[in-house]
Amino acid sequence: MSHHWPDKVQIVEVGPRDGLQNESVIVPTAVKAELIQHLLTAGLSQIEVTSFVHPRLVPQLADANELLALLPRSASNQFSALVPNLKGWERARACELQRIAIFTAASETFARKNINMSVAESLDAYRPLVHEARTQGCSVRAYLSTCFVCPYEGEMAVSRVVELSQALLDLGADEVAISDTIGAAAPTDIERTIGALLEHVPAERIALHLHDTYGTALANVVAGLQLGIRTFDSSCGGLGGCPFAPGASGNLATEDLVYLLQRMNIACGVDMSALQRAAAFIASRLGRELSSRHWKRWQCKPSTTT
Amino acid sequence: MSHHWPDKVQIVEVGPRDGLQNESVIVPTAVKAELIQHLLTAGLSQIEVTSFVHPRLVPQLADANELLALLPRSASNQFSALVPNLKGWERARACELQRIAIFTAASETFARKNINMSVAESLDAYRPLVHEARTQGCSVRAYLSTCFVCPYEGEMAVSRVVELSQALLDLGADEVAISDTIGAAAPTDIERTIGALLEHVPAERIALHLHDTYGTALANVVAGLQLGIRTFDSSCGGLGGCPFAPGASGNLATEDLVYLLQRMNIACGVDMSALQRAAAFIASRLGRELSSRHWKRWQCKPSTTT
Repeated sequence: MSHHWPDKVQIVEVGPRDGLQNESVIVPTAVKAELIQHLLTAGLSQIEVTSFVHPRLVPQLADANELLALLPRSASNQFSALVPNLKGWERARACELQRIAIFTAASETFARKNINMSVAESLDAYRPLVHEARTQGCSVRAYLSTCFVCPYEGEMAVSRVVELSQALLDLGADEVAISDTIGAAAPTDIERTIGALLEHVPAERIALHLHDTYGTALANVVAGLQLGIRTFDSSCGGLGGCPFAPGASGNLATEDLVYLLQRMNIACGVDMSALQRAAAFIASRLGRELSSRHWKRWQCKPSTTT
Repeated sequence: MSHHWPDKVQIVEVGPRDGLQNESVIVPTAVKAELIQHLLTAGLSQIEVTSFVHPRLVPQLADANELLALLPRSASNQFSALVPNLKGWERARACELQRIAIFTAASETFARKNINMSVAESLDAYRPLVHEARTQGCSVRAYLSTCFVCPYEGEMAVSRVVELSQALLDLGADEVAISDTIGAAAPTDIERTIGALLEHVPAERIALHLHDTYGTALANVVAGLQLGIRTFDSSCGGLGGCPFAPGASGNLATEDLVYLLQRMNIACGVDMSALQRAAAFIASRLGRELSSRHWKRWQCKPSTTT
């Protein structure tokens, strides 16, 4: 039995937003810009760089406008930013962003704790925002959080994930990022949930956003690949977690994902050496070890291993 | 597309041997015995407990006879030990072991550096040993190391893995443990190599021995499950590595494997809480952090997450 693997996939780098938002020490704007430049150099063309959430809620990302002013725009890269409401959209618009992201959850409790709205309220709030953004030529990605297990509510119903994914796409999002927020999923979860979703939504409109809490993230990527998913989120160095999600640890690390893909002969356009420099850069600025499997290897003495 | 998953699999716990042999500080025999008792309590019924290699080569395991004298024997558990030669077999026999393991490699250079024999010489050396062991009613497992990538020779030919696996089984081994010694493999490697092997050898005689250097071990377990493999090696806490293999890091951690299996509804007979106690015990005695994903989680403050 041999699977049909794709020739290439798209990585969405979320470290600067989903990663750094969990760092308690404020990272200077210039350091963020330099990290993003390292990521661009490594070949990561889609990067979620910040969030236009209220500065009081996430002080780490309060410099969104200043950061975007420092970033090089080109046709070959696409920056996105999280936008929680119309006020955030006005800020994003001033930065001439071509892509934004919205965020809700499969779990009511998680939505309440994270965005202080019910899920239904969040959909109502996003409707005019997405309409406005698309009218201005800006594309929209939607995160659907806690699609498998919620730290407060436990197991999530597949039907709810399907229903909410469709609602988000109906709002005008072009892509829904099915998120394993606390990294609890195994390949059987991916098969069940993504399999059901694919009966209603084409694979091109689905991304997988995985966390590596229990080491299952790459197994879940492979399950996604087998189902036809071609877009995967990851975070340089495995930066991340979620301040509102007890039990969440880092995002799937970009370098671990890139290793898997390269070993499987699936192109993703990323240069591993440049990616290592990006991780080393942010580790030195954060003054801490990173959580990826590669980070640990990179800290070892050089050996004869290639 | 949904796969057919098995109801249960067998875990072979290799921490006491493959893990501890890489610890530079000598672990007291009584501590090893207590670790093994913890592992038995957790439900791990097949445990590789030590090696009858020359004490000068691996001082950590020089207490093999003393250790085995301390271990409780019962019909419900099976201890095995690595046996490198006839002299080792005589020591193992004195301990009334019911199962031994032999070890060679797909890579000539790796075999030379690890067991100081060519691969052909190792097969010749094991032939009388295996015959003798089986005559005495002792079953034999065979490790085939560096089946995917050798740290010295690079990529390994699939045909060589198939040929040597057959040779080891022809010698009288009942099982060959296909080993990703430096943890370089991805699911495509598993498909290619195990797929070819399955044309000649039934799945029941194949085990997968994986290392988690780059985070691909669980993805490789899933690839193995999809191919019909039902026996997987792992090491409590992710103990391990290989002193002769630059680039090797810890074995796949038993707790990470157990989590994956339990989440996939595949029985393995292991109690996670008891396994956590086993890991905490050996970590406290080694005085260091362990490398499993679960270890990191277990060190976090208790949360509302289940």
